[in-house]
Amino acid sequence: MEPMPTTSYHMAPDAFRRHGHAVVDWIADYLERVDSYPVLSQVAPGQIRASLPPSPPAQGEPFEAMLADVEKLILPGITHWQSPSFFAFFPGNNSGPSILGDLLCSGLGVQGMLWTTSPACTELETHVLDWVVDILGLPAHFKSDAAGGGVIQDSASSAAVCALLAARERATQGESNRRGCDGRLVAYGSTQTHSSIEKAMGVVGMGRDNLRLIDVDDSFAMRPDLLLAQIRRDRAAGLTPCFACATVGTTSSNAVDPLPAIGRICREEQLWMHVDAAMAGTAAVCPEYRFLQDGLDAADSYCFNPHKWMFTNFDCDCFFVADRAALIRALSILPEYLRNQATQSGAVIDYRDWHVPLGRRFRALKLWFVIRHYGVEGLRHHVRRHIELAHAFARWVRADDRFELAVPPPLNLVCFRHRGGDDVNQRLMDRLNATGRLYLTHTRLGGRLTLRLCVGQTCTEERHVRAAWDLIRQSVES
Amino acid sequence: MEPMPTTSYHMAPDAFRRHGHAVVDWIADYLERVDSYPVLSQVAPGQIRASLPPSPPAQGEPFEAMLADVEKLILPGITHWQSPSFFAFFPGNNSGPSILGDLLCSGLGVQGMLWTTSPACTELETHVLDWVVDILGLPAHFKSDAAGGGVIQDSASSAAVCALLAARERATQGESNRRGCDGRLVAYGSTQTHSSIEKAMGVVGMGRDNLRLIDVDDSFAMRPDLLLAQIRRDRAAGLTPCFACATVGTTSSNAVDPLPAIGRICREEQLWMHVDAAMAGTAAVCPEYRFLQDGLDAADSYCFNPHKWMFTNFDCDCFFVADRAALIRALSILPEYLRNQATQSGAVIDYRDWHVPLGRRFRALKLWFVIRHYGVEGLRHHVRRHIELAHAFARWVRADDRFELAVPPPLNLVCFRHRGGDDVNQRLMDRLNATGRLYLTHTRLGGRLTLRLCVGQTCTEERHVRAAWDLIRQSVES
Repeated sequence: MEPMPTTSYHMAPDAFRRHGHAVVDWIADYLERVDSYPVLSQVAPGQIRASLPPSPPAQGEPFEAMLADVEKLILPGITHWQSPSFFAFFPGNNSGPSILGDLLCSGLGVQGMLWTTSPACTELETHVLDWVVDILGLPAHFKSDAAGGGVIQDSASSAAVCALLAARERATQGESNRRGCDGRLVAYGSTQTHSSIEKAMGVVGMGRDNLRLIDVDDSFAMRPDLLLAQIRRDRAAGLTPCFACATVGTTSSNAVDPLPAIGRICREEQLWMHVDAAMAGTAAVCPEYRFLQDGLDAADSYCFNPHKWMFTNFDCDCFFVADRAALIRALSILPEYLRNQATQSGAVIDYRDWHVPLGRRFRALKLWFVIRHYGVEGLRHHVRRHIELAHAFARWVRADDRFELAVPPPLNLVCFRHRGGDDVNQRLMDRLNATGRLYLTHTRLGGRLTLRLCVGQTCTEERHVRAAWDLIRQSVES
Repeated sequence: MEPMPTTSYHMAPDAFRRHGHAVVDWIADYLERVDSYPVLSQVAPGQIRASLPPSPPAQGEPFEAMLADVEKLILPGITHWQSPSFFAFFPGNNSGPSILGDLLCSGLGVQGMLWTTSPACTELETHVLDWVVDILGLPAHFKSDAAGGGVIQDSASSAAVCALLAARERATQGESNRRGCDGRLVAYGSTQTHSSIEKAMGVVGMGRDNLRLIDVDDSFAMRPDLLLAQIRRDRAAGLTPCFACATVGTTSSNAVDPLPAIGRICREEQLWMHVDAAMAGTAAVCPEYRFLQDGLDAADSYCFNPHKWMFTNFDCDCFFVADRAALIRALSILPEYLRNQATQSGAVIDYRDWHVPLGRRFRALKLWFVIRHYGVEGLRHHVRRHIELAHAFARWVRADDRFELAVPPPLNLVCFRHRGGDDVNQRLMDRLNATGRLYLTHTRLGGRLTLRLCVGQTCTEERHVRAAWDLIRQSVES
């Protein structure tokens, strides 16, 4: 073979160290000054793109130019989720150990589709998810030494798809996977269930119209009596009820569905019971909030997102099943080019069979780092502080005659509104968000536009919540 | 409100800088010494878990202990995808700019589900994917200024699910999304199509049995005559053909399906044509390999993975559609709590409607960094080198009477085997991988066990491929 040219365009190790240190410092600086930026990006549609060169570069550029462009071109288009004054949606918090665990994941660059393609990627994930069962006081049957087990998914949406698939397969003895759906499988949520369940119904071919949205009580929790009645009506109509989603902490108001009653119905009616605790699940690190998950032992699957409220950067959804065989039956496939001795032995987990994607990152590293850095004690401390801050905010709302709470805040989400009606609240929210000094979003509860303030960002302290309340009061039309 | 304790368990900014620098240096060290480790991890099932403490820590631990454990406990369980002697599966390569772009993504911690939740996250992604169309010479209708557009998915598996959903919806005018599938929708691939298509058929409720695996020619490319005949048989049986997947570079042998002929059939028969170029797509950075995608202008969707061969760490699949409206119709959902002015205006892209998950990371950053660091010139250089190295390896195989090529290598994947039969090849592969000096995997072609050597890791040079061949020759049973 002729000698080959030795040209290399790769970043040399020394340059990687230098630039890497610069990026770490940039992130540290960013997080220290993050509350100096408008929380909600103030750019107009198309503004960021207009600042970017229309064509890709023919020749490489220096790294310094790229980092400078992040500062100059990208930052104005960032809505600062890590701002201590980000109170919108549910939080997506983060932490130093998570960022650095994720950095190791990127640097190792392993792809854990099979146990054999990096045993540590699989075994650490299994191990840390068993830890999570202990940390949250989840039912022991979600542990890998029982019939269940946990896996990291990208999001609660994807977990919902997997739960529905397992339910669909169990209800049809595998027929729907082999021969397709027949449009007669029915699933249940409440009117407050996250939209990802309805989306998932379309994705898995069961049909969005076949999700029954059961009405809720005054606390916006699902009414089990109506659930049971609907199941019976559907059976009488010749349909096949197969799945119910109960929520611990709905997106609109953090309502908690009555798991024990729903669980009994699911057992009796042989429905797969999925519990979505995407945000609120983290509260169970504190023993005093574990009552929220009473009844979870009847669940076939459960998920919560450390990437919301547990200091772990997106993406990291922990999805647990009581019967891993049911999940694997729905998702397993083994082409020749993936066959290997470890898989054949049956002694290992191949997580590719636990979700839709084949490839997977080493996401357990960041969760491991977060748990080890904070310890259970540290996690509890910060979760308690967030809840205390939300409750303080609720007290201030209650004390102001112009405002009302839509519901008492169960945890770290406060649903409130000005008594002046929808238009006043819409204008108030738009005015607040346009200041850039905080970011909050809305929902509708009982048909009325309601503002949501969720306390969960890593560095949110009393002064930020206090400043938010001051700004809200000042921004009310006089 | 009573004053709150100021205790914090968060990592202080200075500590983050210090530990961050240490992690960057650790990665630089790791990548410099990566070829000193066994490529395929040599641990036994359960060995990594056995080294980990059974219970989560009650109190936090120092970061130094965590990083030391990565070295001591995790590394033995790593299969080193970044080793220059990793020749298994398809590559999952990586680079400094990619790692650092991903680090910025983790540090910014934004969640780009909506344009408004970080406009730059959406606009940079649209922009860079338009660049990719230029870089690869893809059809212009995949650009966002036409009716199409690109989006980053986690994997080609998820892209396949989205393509199938859009096809399913188009074929049923939305009925399958609303009311569920009926098991009469049929899709087509070849016997060499990636298993993710069959898995996706189960996921979307069309049924795995409704994927027809069309036979291939001597180059393992799909036979369009058989495709057309099968479509007609299915129509005659009252079924609804709606989707075909053509592959540019199959997993087993890098075979290239005849896109022009398949495209004509899909147009005439009104099938959604998806083209999967997960690994081989990167070759089109070089004009001399663009002939492989001739006929792509008939495709409704296309994907390739920069996380395989374009120096971008997992996950990063680029998924393009010719008609974004069809994709969005299949996946869109808008609950009250996600409503916002920008979405209502119709002037922005909300990528949550382009895939299954709601939340999403700022993955465009790493792809932007990779393209800018290497420039088109640098990408071409390294892709050409990989292909040259694979072809050199193929020449060595040809020159040794004991071995044969299963097919001529079109690109960077060489399929070869010892002439002694399956058992000899299986033992040879096991022996090679047990040395830890390289990692390669197998497939079956024409029923015969065939070894695959794929050249695509970032730092693979002539000496590594030469050493692999020397080891293979020496390892043959005498």
